[in-house]
Amino acid sequence: MNNFEQYTPTKVIFGKGSEEKAGEAVKNAGGSKVLLVYGGGSAVKSGLIERVEKSLTEAGVGYIEFGGAKPNPTLAHAEDGVVIAKTENIDFILAVGGGSAIDTAKAIAHGTANPDKALWDLWTKKVPLTKSLPVGAILTIAAAGSEMSDSAVLTNEETGAKGGINTEFNRCRFAIMNPELTFTLPLYQQAAGITDIMMHTMERYFIPKIKCDLTDEIAEGLLRTVIKNGKIVMKDQNNYDAQAEIMWCSSISHNNLTECGRGKDFSVHKFGHALSAVFDYTHGASLAAVWGAWAEYLYKDAPDRFAKFARKVWNIDDPDDLSSAKKGIDATVAYFKSIGMPVSLKEIGPDVEWTDEIIELLAMKATMQDTVKLSRIRPIGAKEAAEIYKLALR
Amino acid sequence: MNNFEQYTPTKVIFGKGSEEKAGEAVKNAGGSKVLLVYGGGSAVKSGLIERVEKSLTEAGVGYIEFGGAKPNPTLAHAEDGVVIAKTENIDFILAVGGGSAIDTAKAIAHGTANPDKALWDLWTKKVPLTKSLPVGAILTIAAAGSEMSDSAVLTNEETGAKGGINTEFNRCRFAIMNPELTFTLPLYQQAAGITDIMMHTMERYFIPKIKCDLTDEIAEGLLRTVIKNGKIVMKDQNNYDAQAEIMWCSSISHNNLTECGRGKDFSVHKFGHALSAVFDYTHGASLAAVWGAWAEYLYKDAPDRFAKFARKVWNIDDPDDLSSAKKGIDATVAYFKSIGMPVSLKEIGPDVEWTDEIIELLAMKATMQDTVKLSRIRPIGAKEAAEIYKLALR
Repeated sequence: MNNFEQYTPTKVIFGKGSEEKAGEAVKNAGGSKVLLVYGGGSAVKSGLIERVEKSLTEAGVGYIEFGGAKPNPTLAHAEDGVVIAKTENIDFILAVGGGSAIDTAKAIAHGTANPDKALWDLWTKKVPLTKSLPVGAILTIAAAGSEMSDSAVLTNEETGAKGGINTEFNRCRFAIMNPELTFTLPLYQQAAGITDIMMHTMERYFIPKIKCDLTDEIAEGLLRTVIKNGKIVMKDQNNYDAQAEIMWCSSISHNNLTECGRGKDFSVHKFGHALSAVFDYTHGASLAAVWGAWAEYLYKDAPDRFAKFARKVWNIDDPDDLSSAKKGIDATVAYFKSIGMPVSLKEIGPDVEWTDEIIELLAMKATMQDTVKLSRIRPIGAKEAAEIYKLALR
Repeated sequence: MNNFEQYTPTKVIFGKGSEEKAGEAVKNAGGSKVLLVYGGGSAVKSGLIERVEKSLTEAGVGYIEFGGAKPNPTLAHAEDGVVIAKTENIDFILAVGGGSAIDTAKAIAHGTANPDKALWDLWTKKVPLTKSLPVGAILTIAAAGSEMSDSAVLTNEETGAKGGINTEFNRCRFAIMNPELTFTLPLYQQAAGITDIMMHTMERYFIPKIKCDLTDEIAEGLLRTVIKNGKIVMKDQNNYDAQAEIMWCSSISHNNLTECGRGKDFSVHKFGHALSAVFDYTHGASLAAVWGAWAEYLYKDAPDRFAKFARKVWNIDDPDDLSSAKKGIDATVAYFKSIGMPVSLKEIGPDVEWTDEIIELLAMKATMQDTVKLSRIRPIGAKEAAEIYKLALR
């Protein structure tokens, strides 16, 4: 087991009606005037924003609305939020939504607390981030895990770069999670969320040669839980218990608990981010589209690890590591397909002509112009990344 | 799944050499003058206290030593610590040791921050606890889980009462965990620690009729991990990876993660606390001595739950719930015995004459003079508690 640090200070408030505790939670965290960050109209139409505002008012907390957070949230939109937050003397950023709203809120918090610095410079660590405003989240999509994670992702539309920042300042003060709020998710978003949740744990699992029993047990148990309950919610979105499992898994999958003693990789995310930056694909779908190719490209370099995954997560009963590993990969890809996710580039982009030039562009983007090596199984540069994207053509 | 809140703000600093980060950790948490709370001479003799003091000095943090924390820590000793902390203007309490040192530190923190209130009144919630000093822990015994828990236990020697308090003020700011520090534990303490860790999860597991997939997966995985690595460390205490698993399990077992959506019971702890309050037995041993009787008394009222435990934790392959349940109980008792724990009252107290009067005294103590009902399987008052103690005679 490697040395590690683990810090998850986010207070989880989980269950039916929990959004009614928003005002009290903001007040307890020291907020007096909130920027309410959310996405499209569904949070308004469903009455959720109104309920949250009522709770804020009852707690004596003021607020300003800031809607319009988009999937693959942009730097420009966050910068707009910073302007409003500064003008309105906001001291707390409250996100209502999924990863897009929460990551936008985190970016606005960083920008508002550092008015003399360019947000993208802070984001890319060109300028060190030393302070931020407190952020809270009311979750409506179980997927990104941003409600408990130290990470956030923005796209700079001017340069086409999609990048994440990991910092303790990204930890939400509280995360309010009512599974009922996810009953009305579009099915494609539900499936993409399930994929993203699985991937957050899988990106921490496929690191060979480090012995971590408890971390493995938690990871494997979490994956079994998502797979089982994912099947249920795809047929019955109003199943409270199943949605509750998915939602709790989304947080545990990405709050670093599944990496303790081993660390993380996140190379598949790099492949997906490059795809989403160019084509604006749904994040979870972009991961499903490349994971099978990524795994097939690498499993022979860590057959024992992939075999353990197959046996523990998919109950594969085969004494041979290599063939178990392959069966586990096939089962995972089949699962993604069964919940409606694309499992190849042709499926995610049927109208795209996947030329060598596009593959090359994606490979360069995923490896930051061939300056970083991906994967902790073996080093993946731009050349190998292109081979993986080609394998994902199918 | 029931509604829940989960809040684990303790920063975990885990691994080899982590005690050298003590000074920095105290400073980051705002401490400038530390009361260093520890137990007997082993922390001094091993050079640990000296290393910690060096780290504090290097970080510019002052300190005063306060040794002598005992197993089943006492109110009187904590009160002595409060006097010193007040006189010396201490602003941070740092425990070096296991649950006894950490619980003593928590009590001193509460007492010092509330100089006008009696510590036992705060402890028993006669007077509400509204503030405390920050506490940190350097763990040398994996057992109590106090390093990440919201609980602490003290014995009032004047009245013979042993009682716990759960409060957010009991959360350590940081927990430094170097598994190497546990290599020299007496084997009996090692085994008692293993038992206590298992019990913290089992006390949250045996609550019927609530569906919690992820929480069950984590609990079952944790128990398998402790059982497996417990066997290893009982034969080879210098096995770093195995001690690391035990140590990480001790924290996860008691930081509330294994109760999310279900809650907790802790009735076996009540039976054990009564035994330790009267006879000063090692905490873990007191749990092992009664658990088998407790389980046999109750399993027929929740056979599905005990059967799940048997199948998932002990790999019992039997389609019948009742007989699976019984086999799981037998396997657990046999495991406790195999690591040297007493599994009956006669084994824990071979020289005690276990008269009806003593059984009655214990039963009344465990149920707070028959004023509270134990267990969430079915209500256990003083009468039933006496029956369980008698079953534990064997």
